[in-house]
Amino acid sequence: MQAATRIEGALAQAVSLAQGPGAPPLLAAALHYAVFPAGHRIRPQLCLAVAHACGDRDPAAADAAAVAIELLHCASLVHDDLPCFDNADLRRGKASVHMAFGEPLAVLTGDALIVQAFATLGAQVRQNPLVMATLIGIVAESVGAPRGVVAGQAWECEVAVPLSDYQRAKTGALFVAATAAGAAAAGQDPAPWRSLGEKLGEAYQVADDLRDVLCDAEELGKPIGQDAKRLRPNAAAELGVGGAKAYLEGLMTAAVASIPECPGSAELRMLIEAQTALFFPKQLARAAA
Amino acid sequence: MQAATRIEGALAQAVSLAQGPGAPPLLAAALHYAVFPAGHRIRPQLCLAVAHACGDRDPAAADAAAVAIELLHCASLVHDDLPCFDNADLRRGKASVHMAFGEPLAVLTGDALIVQAFATLGAQVRQNPLVMATLIGIVAESVGAPRGVVAGQAWECEVAVPLSDYQRAKTGALFVAATAAGAAAAGQDPAPWRSLGEKLGEAYQVADDLRDVLCDAEELGKPIGQDAKRLRPNAAAELGVGGAKAYLEGLMTAAVASIPECPGSAELRMLIEAQTALFFPKQLARAAA
Repeated sequence: MQAATRIEGALAQAVSLAQGPGAPPLLAAALHYAVFPAGHRIRPQLCLAVAHACGDRDPAAADAAAVAIELLHCASLVHDDLPCFDNADLRRGKASVHMAFGEPLAVLTGDALIVQAFATLGAQVRQNPLVMATLIGIVAESVGAPRGVVAGQAWECEVAVPLSDYQRAKTGALFVAATAAGAAAAGQDPAPWRSLGEKLGEAYQVADDLRDVLCDAEELGKPIGQDAKRLRPNAAAELGVGGAKAYLEGLMTAAVASIPECPGSAELRMLIEAQTALFFPKQLARAAA
Repeated sequence: MQAATRIEGALAQAVSLAQGPGAPPLLAAALHYAVFPAGHRIRPQLCLAVAHACGDRDPAAADAAAVAIELLHCASLVHDDLPCFDNADLRRGKASVHMAFGEPLAVLTGDALIVQAFATLGAQVRQNPLVMATLIGIVAESVGAPRGVVAGQAWECEVAVPLSDYQRAKTGALFVAATAAGAAAAGQDPAPWRSLGEKLGEAYQVADDLRDVLCDAEELGKPIGQDAKRLRPNAAAELGVGGAKAYLEGLMTAAVASIPECPGSAELRMLIEAQTALFFPKQLARAAA
């Protein structure tokens, strides 16, 4: 089965369990709205690609990890868009959850997605306890405190921000979870796969910085120029567009070079190059063509 | 070891893991602030009491469940106090988390506590996979959508609210989790223990309604008269103080009567009666004396 089909099917099942009998109708609607229609699904695609390269010994475990990571990513977007953070009206080209459903339901939607992520992992524990124990640990570490997504967002509340800690936690952690969890789900040691996630996470951050400077809001599906407005660090502002683009290409080369030897490593390299083209700003892709 | 000592020790360990190396200092401080000093810890006390009555075959599993349930309870308080919900300045007699740390850190503190709850459960999976699989399921069901705490809070965003669904989800669910998880942690079937949790949860809700009407803010440690202000259902307003008190006593009798036969059932009955005295409004306790 195509990875995209696996991911959308598994996400639909997880969301529909959370919408089950007795759910408040607006919360049920907001949960669906926050997860669908599909974004690029870069993190779950990466997770399944690594699992596949490692032999995909337990597809249900890999699916659970991919779904948990994507639900947590969606939860972080919903909470990041709240008025007390980015106060963003747009996300993926449509109204953000709090604009569409109000702030209380946006807070609760994020909360429910976090719970559903772990419920999805928990539901596989009986089938493969040792692998699922590792996956729950990897996913929890990538999203909670002290060094996950939540911690990354919390660095924005500090006066002095260690830039690398901030970006590694806020953006990098879920990429590391994706590669490490993909390997662990296939029964492989996740440790050698962390570097790929770290480099892809940083590349994604630099690409996002470039998009924030280069794109228009329609292409991006969310407001532009947010980093300058919020005094957030931005690689394109620091290195210039050319410098940031060169840095991004260096990261991509290093990412692909870091792939551990495994049965599917050649295929994985091609897939990652294709996937990352998705998050390259269109202007740069055109310039490179 | 005394239950209170077990609970505070296990909570301190869980919070300190979330505050570990690399944590943003304000988030680390807010996490501690949201969990300590101890409230009555009614839910984890109940969980350990049921585990004890059932033989406490795996104390580490029981501790993990008790901690997860209390962390999730604390998370729900932090998010419920937010300006977009109750906008409460006070909680447990001190400034609410968003008043002390600001709204962004309050959102993130709740998120991080939810993650830490599941990380705590996940950390025990290797030791006792089948029991932990059950516990993760029980806890996730009690806090997420469609019928957990988050769903209960989301009913406040609906125009038409089925009152019993609302209260069962918002207050009852974590009590059911406490009794069911206590039994499951000891290797017993959790199903017969749900009724005790349901009745205690409803009793707690009625007692809370009475306190909202009867107490002063200093005794309560949070603002009073909130239900009338927010047009929320309140048993004391519906049944009168005398009627609500009689209803509460009936629930307590039914709760104690619902305790399944087990080695420690007599001791558990006494303990529950002592614990529930804690959440009886002082005025009523005085009137009854």
